Amino acid sequence: MKISVGISNHHVHLNEEDYRLLFGDTVMEKRNDLKQPGMFASTLQVSVEGPKGRMDRFRVLGPLRGYTQVEISKTDSYSLGVNPPVRNSGDLADAVPIKIIGPNGEIERNACIIATRHIHVDKKIREEHNLVGVEKVKVQKVGEKGAILDDVYLKDSEEAYFELHLDTDDANALLLKQDDELEIVE
Amino acid sequence: MKISVGISNHHVHLNEEDYRLLFGDTVMEKRNDLKQPGMFASTLQVSVEGPKGRMDRFRVLGPLRGYTQVEISKTDSYSLGVNPPVRNSGDLADAVPIKIIGPNGEIERNACIIATRHIHVDKKIREEHNLVGVEKVKVQKVGEKGAILDDVYLKDSEEAYFELHLDTDDANALLLKQDDELEIVE
Repeated sequence: MKISVGISNHHVHLNEEDYRLLFGDTVMEKRNDLKQPGMFASTLQVSVEGPKGRMDRFRVLGPLRGYTQVEISKTDSYSLGVNPPVRNSGDLADAVPIKIIGPNGEIERNACIIATRHIHVDKKIREEHNLVGVEKVKVQKVGEKGAILDDVYLKDSEEAYFELHLDTDDANALLLKQDDELEIVE
Repeated sequence: MKISVGISNHHVHLNEEDYRLLFGDTVMEKRNDLKQPGMFASTLQVSVEGPKGRMDRFRVLGPLRGYTQVEISKTDSYSLGVNPPVRNSGDLADAVPIKIIGPNGEIERNACIIATRHIHVDKKIREEHNLVGVEKVKVQKVGEKGAILDDVYLKDSEEAYFELHLDTDDANALLLKQDDELEIVE
């Protein structure tokens, strides 16, 4: 079964309170829709800082959520000097501290993770693709720097666009570009 | 069969002529030995520059070779704005142009590649590990962000240290550290 790839660059989700601390009264505006229904990239960016360094231009995704989360790659983690766990989005129990810097102020939160490899699904997609009851799959890239990636979690939402999300480390290791197609093999 | 991982950060090999253009009369000194017999990291560094950006502190490896070669990751290629092919070391037929900047001068060479995943072997290692006549294998990382990587080429030399070389994209995608052990699976 084929699935198209969405490459997730490092980015930030914010809750209402942290958004206000970083951006004050600025209204969040949409830059562009993402493929997941309702999700969008805003026009706003923040910087993030760890013990070893600072990185600028982290995109703030919308809409606001119930939690603040900074998703980075392992490569980023060496630049920042942090050691985040690999976690599904929203699972922040042992997320590591990170400073987030906006135009209106800065905050430090236990919010930094490396996101798991995941595929967005909903009830209808699971039924159509014979994925009912499946927790995780493997995906294969055939060709130059090919690989089979384990532990690709199925992530449910009310209404999803069927897409594989990989971080920039996985994508670059396999020479993948946005919308490339991989094969679900297990 | 187990094999230990050596992570290759981006680096530069130089021929005698290019070494002189970049470093003049400076004698190349060893910083530390590498595991491959005779190979070493020198104390010298260069900068490399592509159409989109410059990166500093590329280590010059020794000894000098018959060719000049800049090995980068796909991640680096986006920073530099180059699109190098994936090639075995020394196969520079369609390597892409890159500028190399040293204290004594700068040069531009068709020298930039992404190195293939490879395992260093010699005749004795091939015999001991049942790898006689094998061109390439697959290697597996079990555990968090696990994967099977294809197209791991066996690279012969007169005397080798049996080790898997991966670039930083592959290593970071699989959360690997220097000297981690993977399994040769095919």
